[in-house]
Amino acid sequence: MKLLEERIRKDGSVKAGGVLKVDSFLNHQIDVDLFNEMGKEFKRLFADRPINKILTIEASGIGIACIVAQHFGVPVVFAKKAKSINLDGEVYSTKIESFTHQRVYDVIVSKKFLSADDHVLIVDDFLANGCAVDGLIDLIRSAGATVEGVGIAIEKGFQEGGKRIRGKGLRVESLAIIEQMDDVTGEITFREQA
Amino acid sequence: MKLLEERIRKDGSVKAGGVLKVDSFLNHQIDVDLFNEMGKEFKRLFADRPINKILTIEASGIGIACIVAQHFGVPVVFAKKAKSINLDGEVYSTKIESFTHQRVYDVIVSKKFLSADDHVLIVDDFLANGCAVDGLIDLIRSAGATVEGVGIAIEKGFQEGGKRIRGKGLRVESLAIIEQMDDVTGEITFREQA
Repeated sequence: MKLLEERIRKDGSVKAGGVLKVDSFLNHQIDVDLFNEMGKEFKRLFADRPINKILTIEASGIGIACIVAQHFGVPVVFAKKAKSINLDGEVYSTKIESFTHQRVYDVIVSKKFLSADDHVLIVDDFLANGCAVDGLIDLIRSAGATVEGVGIAIEKGFQEGGKRIRGKGLRVESLAIIEQMDDVTGEITFREQA
Repeated sequence: MKLLEERIRKDGSVKAGGVLKVDSFLNHQIDVDLFNEMGKEFKRLFADRPINKILTIEASGIGIACIVAQHFGVPVVFAKKAKSINLDGEVYSTKIESFTHQRVYDVIVSKKFLSADDHVLIVDDFLANGCAVDGLIDLIRSAGATVEGVGIAIEKGFQEGGKRIRGKGLRVESLAIIEQMDDVTGEITFREQA
C-alpha cells in the first residue's frame, strides 16, 4: 500500500537492533485517517472471506482493529495480557513472547467471545517473528473457530514470522513489507507487492 | 446517553466488590457501532471546545479514543504503561494506581506528542476513583498543554473520581453515570442527566 510505505519513509525511523519507530502515526500517536485507508484496503483484500469478527491483542493492535472493523461491519475482540479481576468465567489462553518487552505473557480471550461459528480476521500493527499472531491463531483454534486471514500494517520481511505463517497455508496480507532497513543510512527497502 | 444506559442494563452485569462487567461490548469485545454513537455524542457535548488531540491510556481506552477521534478529526495519543525498548527519547511520566489490576503503573507519553499548543480531550472507558484521569491530566499539564475536558463512557458515580475532577473546574462528560448498583438483585440506577 503506497500510502503507508510513503508514510513510513517520511515519518518512520530505523533504530539499531531491527527496530522501526513509527510512533508518530501508528503505535503511540495514531493517525486515524490513515487507519481508515488501511481499513478500506483490508476490506478490498479480504472481500471474498466471510469474516464476522476481528481479533487483535492489546495494546497497540486495538486502535487499528477498531477502525478496520468499521469497514467490515463486525465487532472486535482483543486478547488480553495477564488476568485481571474483571475477567471471570472461562477463558482460552496461550503464551506469547514479546520481542518489544522481552518477556512472555499469558494471553486470554473469554470463551464467550470466540466460538466454532466464528470466521475471524486477525489484525495487528506489526508482524516480525510472528509470536503474537501464532498466539492468536492458537486462541481461535482452541475455540474451534476459523482463521480467515491475517491483516498486518507493517511486516518485517527480514524476520521469519510472515514466511512461517504463510507456510501454514494461511493468507497473510501486510500493507507494507520491509525487505531491508539500515539504521546507519536510514534507508528502507519495501518488498514489491501486486 | 440512553442508548448506552440501555445497553448496560441489557448486557452488563453487576459483580461483588463494585465491579460492572461490560466486556461483551466495551472492553474485551467491542461494539464499534455503539462507539460511533458515543463519538457523535462527545462531539455534540464538546462542540464549543478547540480540541486538536485526544489522549487516552492503554489498553481499553484506545478503541473508544480512536473511534471518537474520527468525529473530531484529530489524532489520538495513548499513554503507555511502563517503558518499552521502542520508546527512546524524552517522555513525560506519572504514576497511576489501577483498581482493576491492583498495582501502580509508571505511565508515559513521548514529549514529541504533547506540547503547549495542544488542546486535549481525555477519553476513557471508565471513571471510578479517577486515578487514570488524574494521571493523564498530570501528563497534559507537564507539557504545558490545555485540558479541554474529559469524556468518559461509564462513570461509577458512587466513587469519588468524578466529583473530585469536576471540583478542579474541569468539564467531565460521562455518557452513563451509575448512581447505585446491586450485585444481588443486579439492579442498576443511573443518574439523571440533562
